[in-house]
Amino acid sequence: MRRVTVLGATGSVGASALDLIRRNRDAFELVAVTANCQAAELAALAREFGAEIAVVGDESSLSDLHEAMAGSGIEAAGGPSALAEAAARPADLILAAIVGCAGLAPAMAAIEQGTTVALANKEALVSAGDVMTAAVAAHGATLLPVDSEHNAIHQCLAGNDLADVRSITLTASGGPFRDWPAERLAQATPAQAVRHPNWDMGAKISVDSATMFNKGLELIEAHHLFPIGHERLRIVVHPQSVIHSMVEYRDGSTLAQLGPSDMRVPIANVLAWPRRMDTPCAPLDLAALGELTFRAPDEVRFPATRLCREAVQAGGSAPAVLNAANEVAVAAFLAGQIPFTRIAAYVAEVLARSTLPAPKTLADVIAVDGQARAMAREVMEPV
Amino acid sequence: MRRVTVLGATGSVGASALDLIRRNRDAFELVAVTANCQAAELAALAREFGAEIAVVGDESSLSDLHEAMAGSGIEAAGGPSALAEAAARPADLILAAIVGCAGLAPAMAAIEQGTTVALANKEALVSAGDVMTAAVAAHGATLLPVDSEHNAIHQCLAGNDLADVRSITLTASGGPFRDWPAERLAQATPAQAVRHPNWDMGAKISVDSATMFNKGLELIEAHHLFPIGHERLRIVVHPQSVIHSMVEYRDGSTLAQLGPSDMRVPIANVLAWPRRMDTPCAPLDLAALGELTFRAPDEVRFPATRLCREAVQAGGSAPAVLNAANEVAVAAFLAGQIPFTRIAAYVAEVLARSTLPAPKTLADVIAVDGQARAMAREVMEPV
Repeated sequence: MRRVTVLGATGSVGASALDLIRRNRDAFELVAVTANCQAAELAALAREFGAEIAVVGDESSLSDLHEAMAGSGIEAAGGPSALAEAAARPADLILAAIVGCAGLAPAMAAIEQGTTVALANKEALVSAGDVMTAAVAAHGATLLPVDSEHNAIHQCLAGNDLADVRSITLTASGGPFRDWPAERLAQATPAQAVRHPNWDMGAKISVDSATMFNKGLELIEAHHLFPIGHERLRIVVHPQSVIHSMVEYRDGSTLAQLGPSDMRVPIANVLAWPRRMDTPCAPLDLAALGELTFRAPDEVRFPATRLCREAVQAGGSAPAVLNAANEVAVAAFLAGQIPFTRIAAYVAEVLARSTLPAPKTLADVIAVDGQARAMAREVMEPV
Repeated sequence: MRRVTVLGATGSVGASALDLIRRNRDAFELVAVTANCQAAELAALAREFGAEIAVVGDESSLSDLHEAMAGSGIEAAGGPSALAEAAARPADLILAAIVGCAGLAPAMAAIEQGTTVALANKEALVSAGDVMTAAVAAHGATLLPVDSEHNAIHQCLAGNDLADVRSITLTASGGPFRDWPAERLAQATPAQAVRHPNWDMGAKISVDSATMFNKGLELIEAHHLFPIGHERLRIVVHPQSVIHSMVEYRDGSTLAQLGPSDMRVPIANVLAWPRRMDTPCAPLDLAALGELTFRAPDEVRFPATRLCREAVQAGGSAPAVLNAANEVAVAAFLAGQIPFTRIAAYVAEVLARSTLPAPKTLADVIAVDGQARAMAREVMEPV
């Protein structure tokens, strides 16, 4: 029996994890489940899985939660500190799947208990990478990546030593505009950008896929998860998204992980690791697929990956600033305020202007994030 | 320092292994080196690497070896029993790279010392699979496969449990006739058959690649190396031979090993396992390759893989009979005595006629091999 806590149980990753646990009830025991404000949904999950405690991040939803949990014998709590306390409850595996900066403190609390933390929160490694990895080392925690690319790399590293790695290659679908000529990109609309070819995703991440910022942010995460030096991290455009990422070793062997575009595959991997568990995902049929294609990324049309690589190289606050500036720019693009090609241009400008210091604590990270957002809005002001 | 014995040091696999050891002298110490009759070449290797003993399988070459080793302080010996004694000398890793039935007894002696045996001899698993794997289990030896496909599978299994495997897929180049229509195959000449598209190989194995017997024999080997049930072993035609094989797990994850068509990659893998060592092989550049293609094998044009699967299913002496019959048929094809399409037909006929008992010992295997060859020649007699 593996004792599991799901932080962000009503989100997409949390729901997929609970669906897999539902299909393998004998192998898991729920410790804590959390949500932001969906009290009724959370209460139903807590009851179904017999969790010890259910927590809403939004304190104003606590009375709803109390009501929904009445008579269940399951504890209920609310607010940011209750979230962190839930994450600190002893568990064998904590799935940190709260999105955005709200997920940082709970993820940190999970790491500080020195257990295995399956990380699905992007900010934890993009904005707070140095702070988080220092905590992982200090507390002897184990980080398992949930993102399909990083989970692929994690799988390709099994039984191997990071010291033997020659390079790591992240695959990128290239997004919906991968075949568009440069001059057409300025006219790309939000509706066109959110039509991702392979994955069904939210608007923000779809735009990130279209600009290639998504891949650049993953490169920053990979830099923290697999510290082999950023110059050994590569990107290849692979429109079919069947190979999720690859690791090349010093002997010339490359290991790749392939699979369906279904988050249940990497989630099952972290839930069962180092073993495996069943998923209802269909087997891979390469003969039916027929071909897998590859091309080098075009950093002229899509400068995002270059900017992310420069942010990794610069270190300090640069990745957090880049992430915040990108979020503001993407929101402006989705609101029809700036053209597609200005997203990367604004991010570059904010990065160039920023003199924010390197964050040393989570509070610093959140402060840098806020200041960078303000700076980004200022830079875009004339729009 | 890893103490290594190379059985078959002057062959292609042995020479590649010694080339890699030459580039990493600090990590290896040679125990024994053996050859069939190339005494001068073997003596030079024994001196270069400071081996403890050099052995020729062909006893009549022993006087040449003694002469060539004079004053070196290195032991010299000759004959089949000297080969087996060399294989029985304590070593951390024994590379069993003697081709044909002559390699069986030395491979068995290596296994019987319960050490790690890197197996490059095909007959050991095709003809003597049950006998060899029983010895591996009895003596607690570890088998590492050298063949690029099986080594790929071995790499894809690292850190995983065979019980979690859903299927294993061997990739096949499809050989030089993969796009030929059925009616043209009967006219295929030996010269056309030995032109392998991706690997530089000998005539016999090139014909096996053209008939797909090569892949079928690998399926038999995979059945012994990775006992997941033959119905879970698959073959996919992949003309570029970049993916060397794949393992799919119960969660829907597939791990694949990719690399150049260079035997030094799998040889380096077994030499350094469970770590890695440098090779001079160029990095993989998927963007330069552009595409990888896949298709289902056509068992109407190429019935060999079906025959091999049936031999695995039948068990007993069937795989040894199939292997022997194929060798005789390929020799007849290369000599211009039978058409290409009769190779599989003759193998099927010999298999159907054979009532040979299951081999229980290596001597049984060698007897079955001889009887099956005689039977194959008889079946082909009218030709």
